[in-house]
Amino acid sequence: MTLTVDLNADMGESFGPWRMGDDAALLKIVTSANIACGFHAGDADVMMATMRGAVENGVGIGAHPGYADLQGFGRHRMQMPHSTLQNQIRYQIGAAQAMAQAAGGQVRHLKLHGALANTAAEDFELATACYEAALSVAPDIAIMVLAATEQQAAVRALGCKFVCEIFADRAYNDDATLVDRTIPGAVIHDAALAGKRITDMVLRRAIVTASGKEIPTQIDTICLHGDTAEAVDIARAVHADLQAAGVSVTKFPV
Amino acid sequence: MTLTVDLNADMGESFGPWRMGDDAALLKIVTSANIACGFHAGDADVMMATMRGAVENGVGIGAHPGYADLQGFGRHRMQMPHSTLQNQIRYQIGAAQAMAQAAGGQVRHLKLHGALANTAAEDFELATACYEAALSVAPDIAIMVLAATEQQAAVRALGCKFVCEIFADRAYNDDATLVDRTIPGAVIHDAALAGKRITDMVLRRAIVTASGKEIPTQIDTICLHGDTAEAVDIARAVHADLQAAGVSVTKFPV
Amino acid sequence: MTLTVDLNADMGESFGPWRMGDDAALLKIVTSANIACGFHAGDADVMMATMRGAVENGVGIGAHPGYADLQGFGRHRMQMPHSTLQNQIRYQIGAAQAMAQAAGGQVRHLKLHGALANTAAEDFELATACYEAALSVAPDIAIMVLAATEQQAAVRALGCKFVCEIFADRAYNDDATLVDRTIPGAVIHDAALAGKRITDMVLRRAIVTASGKEIPTQIDTICLHGDTAEAVDIARAVHADLQAAGVSVTKFPV
Amino acid sequence: MTLTVDLNADMGESFGPWRMGDDAALLKIVTSANIACGFHAGDADVMMATMRGAVENGVGIGAHPGYADLQGFGRHRMQMPHSTLQNQIRYQIGAAQAMAQAAGGQVRHLKLHGALANTAAEDFELATACYEAALSVAPDIAIMVLAATEQQAAVRALGCKFVCEIFADRAYNDDATLVDRTIPGAVIHDAALAGKRITDMVLRRAIVTASGKEIPTQIDTICLHGDTAEAVDIARAVHADLQAAGVSVTKFPV
Repeated sequence: MTLTVDLNADMGESFGPWRMGDDAALLKIVTSANIACGFHAGDADVMMATMRGAVENGVGIGAHPGYADLQGFGRHRMQMPHSTLQNQIRYQIGAAQAMAQAAGGQVRHLKLHGALANTAAEDFELATACYEAALSVAPDIAIMVLAATEQQAAVRALGCKFVCEIFADRAYNDDATLVDRTIPGAVIHDAALAGKRITDMVLRRAIVTASGKEIPTQIDTICLHGDTAEAVDIARAVHADLQAAGVSVTKFPV
Repeated sequence: MTLTVDLNADMGESFGPWRMGDDAALLKIVTSANIACGFHAGDADVMMATMRGAVENGVGIGAHPGYADLQGFGRHRMQMPHSTLQNQIRYQIGAAQAMAQAAGGQVRHLKLHGALANTAAEDFELATACYEAALSVAPDIAIMVLAATEQQAAVRALGCKFVCEIFADRAYNDDATLVDRTIPGAVIHDAALAGKRITDMVLRRAIVTASGKEIPTQIDTICLHGDTAEAVDIARAVHADLQAAGVSVTKFPV
Repeated sequence: MTLTVDLNADMGESFGPWRMGDDAALLKIVTSANIACGFHAGDADVMMATMRGAVENGVGIGAHPGYADLQGFGRHRMQMPHSTLQNQIRYQIGAAQAMAQAAGGQVRHLKLHGALANTAAEDFELATACYEAALSVAPDIAIMVLAATEQQAAVRALGCKFVCEIFADRAYNDDATLVDRTIPGAVIHDAALAGKRITDMVLRRAIVTASGKEIPTQIDTICLHGDTAEAVDIARAVHADLQAAGVSVTKFPV
Repeated sequence: MTLTVDLNADMGESFGPWRMGDDAALLKIVTSANIACGFHAGDADVMMATMRGAVENGVGIGAHPGYADLQGFGRHRMQMPHSTLQNQIRYQIGAAQAMAQAAGGQVRHLKLHGALANTAAEDFELATACYEAALSVAPDIAIMVLAATEQQAAVRALGCKFVCEIFADRAYNDDATLVDRTIPGAVIHDAALAGKRITDMVLRRAIVTASGKEIPTQIDTICLHGDTAEAVDIARAVHADLQAAGVSVTKFPV
């Protein structure tokens, strides 16, 4: 039986007059797009254009909500009641659904962004609150979780649809969390290395951490970042290396 | 055959720590609520609470999008491309739909807010662009239009579902537009006067302007403002006077 | 020698169409105003009107910066680099200085708001970063600190001008921090109690905590909150009780 | 006597994670920088870094306020009371002054941005309101005006310090306003053409319009845009051509 894997990337991260990422190029490579919803990046015009691009390229659409912190790009933790966080997630998913509908598509998955995702990877209660909010709006949505973290524990407990992802360009700690971006080596910039590394993990069905530890993991999708200079090169390398190893790159089923 | 009319009011106009309007009282009187969507007023928490209140009281839910101008409460005109305006309307409707869904209800109608509504009352092309955007997200939505204006011309041309409203507390110009708020007498503060005046218009099936001119008009719903001190008194007076005149106050059918 | 004390209150916390607090009444009672700078509350119009009111009433003007979180009223902690926090404080102080200048006054003091103030009360490094930023813009500004906390430790180490405050309507923990607002009894709503309690502390030159512990403290100013229903009553009671006890209520010298 | 002229460019137009313009390169060429103040572009970090760059390069610092419309980059007209506009300008100038002070410099001039500048070029009352607000905060500031427009009429009537600018890369209408950006040819992308054209205008002491009409004009400074791909090339060409023609490029005196 053929191994299959989905490739996802964050997209629609431009805002107003400011461009970020090469979405047009990435849409030719990835099979799922995590589209920013206007709180940490993206605006209504950018969302609409990105949704249309995803539909045209047959790429699966995901809502990618984050903290309401445009200046910080959703990368700073913000304390707030779980109920507020839930409402902000509902709001963002709804906006994404409307855009997808107008573009002739639909939102298939949800993925949390930045500091919100990092917090959810560590905090079962917060992850559960976020995902319950998403399901209250879209009961059939697939939750994209960071494999082997509290995000995955939360979706298992909820019994909802989910897919597990690993990051193509981020180093892992031995507890399967991401190495903090401020630490050297946290972000992999070498496309060849990223491709080889990810193919190895997919074939081994395990995360391999910075220290070399192997953590057996369900791997449904690979996250390719869209906001770095080398993003497109890494995406191409990962795609090519996976295919060369006999792994089929296809949109995850829902 | 009994005359029937809907009563609508703007709601969910609080923001963060700031309260506006007595939504709890109004939800006992009106049959439709126009709920702010976070651009000119409202936030995700306020929207959710207001949606829940509407569902509990059997009040029809409307999305009430406005310009992205919180400080100006959406009362200042903003120039932007129609495509941007369309995307901002899609975004706001989607957010409202998600909140309604999570509250166990659904968005039945759309009504434009403030300066956006005023512009659409004068500008057929802009009104059409706004309503097309709404229909691209929610094809079955009823558009609530300011009777006898370009808003009504636009929905007629589009051939979509619509309901016509008149304002309980606003004086009319002879071209059926609202008298500008900065002109004395533009806003009616006397509940008894408002009740009598509206009942007269409903029975005559016509707008009666500040100058006394009668403009025959389809009247499906009466707009009761929620953001004035006397809002609840006016709402009660209108409701009582209509019933005393044999008019049935019920949610408009969709 | 007569004991003297300053009374301060947060003001200018309205935003756009939303009102908060009875600034006109408070300006007749307090001797210093902490004026919101547009990030957590206040807008340019509100700031200008509040500055003018302070000048007219001979009330000392303070810049009152907070986190950039309007929806949460600056009450949620936000993580960000100290350098970003410093720039946001500079920005807010500058805006306040311009408004004060246009109103014929000047910014005499700085006081941090909400979650930022709470964090600074616990975190010497963060407090120091905030105050250094303020002094880089306004070298002669007096820093208003929460007595007996890391805020006070920071201004002592910096060697800058400062005044120490205690809160009229907030209960204290035994480490001199404020009892969290979510805990019952944290906020005092009874004006008579607040007046008696504060006069007692001023005369004893000590904070008296919720548990009855006495913490000897420099007390230059009493904080009267402006955003509660009973704010004006508490302000009047504190003012009256202090005067009855022979304490002179005057603007702190700079 | 040697002809002298100042070269100015808009700077500090990045925001959060998004970059715009090559400020580092432009700071080596221009003599005055118009620094965005956080309403239409720029944030506190970007402002501070840009102020520091200006000080290091001996470039004159200008406050460059715009409409509070980040998503539209201040390019859409917004209606609001003059008093609100005035307060928003005061707020932005104050923020710029604080940043300049912390960077070891000071704000020497004011220049309006985008749609606000365009409106002020046509509307004497609005231009006057904006400049009066600036002078209420900074009485000695030089106002940079679009030559031969209502902006210039306003500063003449106010009797304040001012400098007149023409645009290096924008075509002119015969009434000395800028050709709208949506019209082909409105923006000049050819560096050689821009350099030749501007040198010609400086030597003739006149604007030469798209139709060839000559409008005698006081020319103190040339505006070089910073937000286009070819901005740096145009800046270099203008600088080189002016020097080749014997015009001294120096910061305008204040």
